[in-house]
Amino acid sequence: MSDSDDTDHDDTDSDRTARETPTDPTANPADEQAFTVTPYAVEGTIDYEKLLERFGAEPLTADRVERFPDHPAIRRGFFYAGRDVDRYLEAAESGDPHAIVTGRGPSGPMHLGHVLPLYLAKHLQRETGATVYVPLSDDEKFLAKEGSFEAIGEHTRDNLRDILAVGFDPERTRIVVDTADADLIYPLAVRLAEYLTPATVEAVYGQQGTVGLQFYPAVQAAHLLLPQLVAGRQPTLVPVAIDQDPHVRVCRDVAAKESLPVEKPGALLGRFLPSLEGPGKMSSSGDAPSIGLADDPETVAETIRDHAYTGGRATLEEHREKGGDPSVDVLFQYLRYCFEPDDDLERIAERYRAGDLLSGELKAIAIERITDFLAAHQRRRGKLDELATELEPYRLTDAERRRALERAGVPSILG
Amino acid sequence: MSDSDDTDHDDTDSDRTARETPTDPTANPADEQAFTVTPYAVEGTIDYEKLLERFGAEPLTADRVERFPDHPAIRRGFFYAGRDVDRYLEAAESGDPHAIVTGRGPSGPMHLGHVLPLYLAKHLQRETGATVYVPLSDDEKFLAKEGSFEAIGEHTRDNLRDILAVGFDPERTRIVVDTADADLIYPLAVRLAEYLTPATVEAVYGQQGTVGLQFYPAVQAAHLLLPQLVAGRQPTLVPVAIDQDPHVRVCRDVAAKESLPVEKPGALLGRFLPSLEGPGKMSSSGDAPSIGLADDPETVAETIRDHAYTGGRATLEEHREKGGDPSVDVLFQYLRYCFEPDDDLERIAERYRAGDLLSGELKAIAIERITDFLAAHQRRRGKLDELATELEPYRLTDAERRRALERAGVPSILG
Repeated sequence: MSDSDDTDHDDTDSDRTARETPTDPTANPADEQAFTVTPYAVEGTIDYEKLLERFGAEPLTADRVERFPDHPAIRRGFFYAGRDVDRYLEAAESGDPHAIVTGRGPSGPMHLGHVLPLYLAKHLQRETGATVYVPLSDDEKFLAKEGSFEAIGEHTRDNLRDILAVGFDPERTRIVVDTADADLIYPLAVRLAEYLTPATVEAVYGQQGTVGLQFYPAVQAAHLLLPQLVAGRQPTLVPVAIDQDPHVRVCRDVAAKESLPVEKPGALLGRFLPSLEGPGKMSSSGDAPSIGLADDPETVAETIRDHAYTGGRATLEEHREKGGDPSVDVLFQYLRYCFEPDDDLERIAERYRAGDLLSGELKAIAIERITDFLAAHQRRRGKLDELATELEPYRLTDAERRRALERAGVPSILG
Repeated sequence: MSDSDDTDHDDTDSDRTARETPTDPTANPADEQAFTVTPYAVEGTIDYEKLLERFGAEPLTADRVERFPDHPAIRRGFFYAGRDVDRYLEAAESGDPHAIVTGRGPSGPMHLGHVLPLYLAKHLQRETGATVYVPLSDDEKFLAKEGSFEAIGEHTRDNLRDILAVGFDPERTRIVVDTADADLIYPLAVRLAEYLTPATVEAVYGQQGTVGLQFYPAVQAAHLLLPQLVAGRQPTLVPVAIDQDPHVRVCRDVAAKESLPVEKPGALLGRFLPSLEGPGKMSSSGDAPSIGLADDPETVAETIRDHAYTGGRATLEEHREKGGDPSVDVLFQYLRYCFEPDDDLERIAERYRAGDLLSGELKAIAIERITDFLAAHQRRRGKLDELATELEPYRLTDAERRRALERAGVPSILG
């Protein structure tokens, strides 16, 4: 029995997970037909409320939103659900230890969509002192055949510079790379693998092509429990797009085992930041255009002008007459959730709906906000020294590693 | 394609393995009924010649035996088969690099049967300069639920002292503990896991209870390829009881992948050293009595007197008249394969068969040989200083770790 303040009842988190996977015979077929959301497939028009119900997560009520440090992604409903959010908020409010885990799979250069959760984490860290853990799963990217270890190593080093450029507080931030921190991650994963059967992994993740991918959920569980293993039992929030919720639930089931001195990690569940070309997930792989963190202002402007899906009308006359639709305009979503912090947003929406603001003008606003954001990011990144030196203050110390292994019941063989 | 001097033809090693597992529908039922030999079950009366045929290994011909450094376990047929033995012998004869891997699963104190392969490896090292790798799979023992990590850690430290007491040459010996050397072992295992499908693992090892055990064959493949990854392509011999051959074959298939700069590890396949109480495997788990490495002479004598299965007759008169049967006498097997190096053996056998030598007298000879052996082992063990200090010269250096990771195509992220 877990002694965590649990909101779940008879069935475990991943029991519920199993019912949501397309292969599960108990899934409601009518429901499934409407849309599919798993960590590996997002299809159909997503009904976020129905998804919440299907996943059994808590809505992010107005009261909860109010208790978070102010941030557009929370205030304006990009993150709209969660698990054990109250526990996190209580700790944040009372100054007790609390943590955020927000990882990165280094399969390529990072784009805008990848870095925004890191900036949110930095904001929460600054406001309430949250410890932030950033695990990089180079092992998983190799196993998922997204490149050789050499190529993934290149991406990892590049991504690390972007993560460092975010400007986390080194005292309260730990960055972990699975292969470079294998001395810690592997023994922890073996310890947690005790609780992960092949059947559970297959139910949540589907059939895996290699035994490495089958094992990886144990590594991911180690990531999500790391703050508690290093620094003791504490609420941990994992901000992810809602399609990644099954990963969190697998770890929650592992965390509930009585012999682990941890509580279940919570989740902050988000909508999908739409691809530039329209609804769906923003992706750095494939052909979907995206805004890279290294893009210069001209490239950003060109990418947005050429590819951004707008809520504008077919002709200028029609737009002036009927007005645009901000709810489907991709750039408006960007402004809404990330880049337009003050009351300008409502004015922009109104003028767009009224036909006073044209799509091109909305694009120009977004281009300005995004290039400003990127310029600041690139400036910080440009100032970074040699990677290993910069990373050092963010790596787990030997004492922290030892403590984590001891808490997990995997004390070092040689002391 | 592997460029190793391969004796295998169309099918891969583990294709053949699959046919030998009890769950495989293509196994010959008549053959299966006679006896079963898998890494997890040895049943029935073993026909070693038939087993050889079934496994598709090479017999250890008189010519091969002649080319090995003289040792009773080889000369007298305890090791009676192998894979790619000629390649190993060629390198040993011509002074080219060659290696032996002989591991230990630290699930309890070591007994006599566990340490004998290590003494064989030491002998081969002394005679031809073989590099010896000794991996300790504490991860696997935890995953196989043979104890908590704390308990397995205790056994690991205890077993390490016994391994150190063998007296390997530190210049040519590397001892590896999976959790303590995870910085190296985990990235290598991930690299090799690329080639291990769940189906392969299940065919060879059966269904596994956790994803950790499913992943473990990748760790074991890392063990067997370690000498080549550290020091370059070279023949590697893995001396194991024949029931462990499937482990070697899985690794041979992995090694055959063209992107790995290694050749398939070879095997030296042995009979089972019988349990004191009779045919079957000697085991430190369960209730079977065994001779522990820490036993004092009185305990050894008592254990042998009370439990050793003899080839003697029911009564003294009958024994004098009909003679004993050395071929089923457990202590005679011990003397034959390990402890009676010179021509005394044949005389002992003759006198036993003739009824001149009584079971009790044979026991007395064995007790003397075994206690002498243990006394020398215990003396060396007793001289050891603090474990970490003693182990240090046997651990992989940072340069060796880096080289192994580079050869495997897993260069360190941070240089």
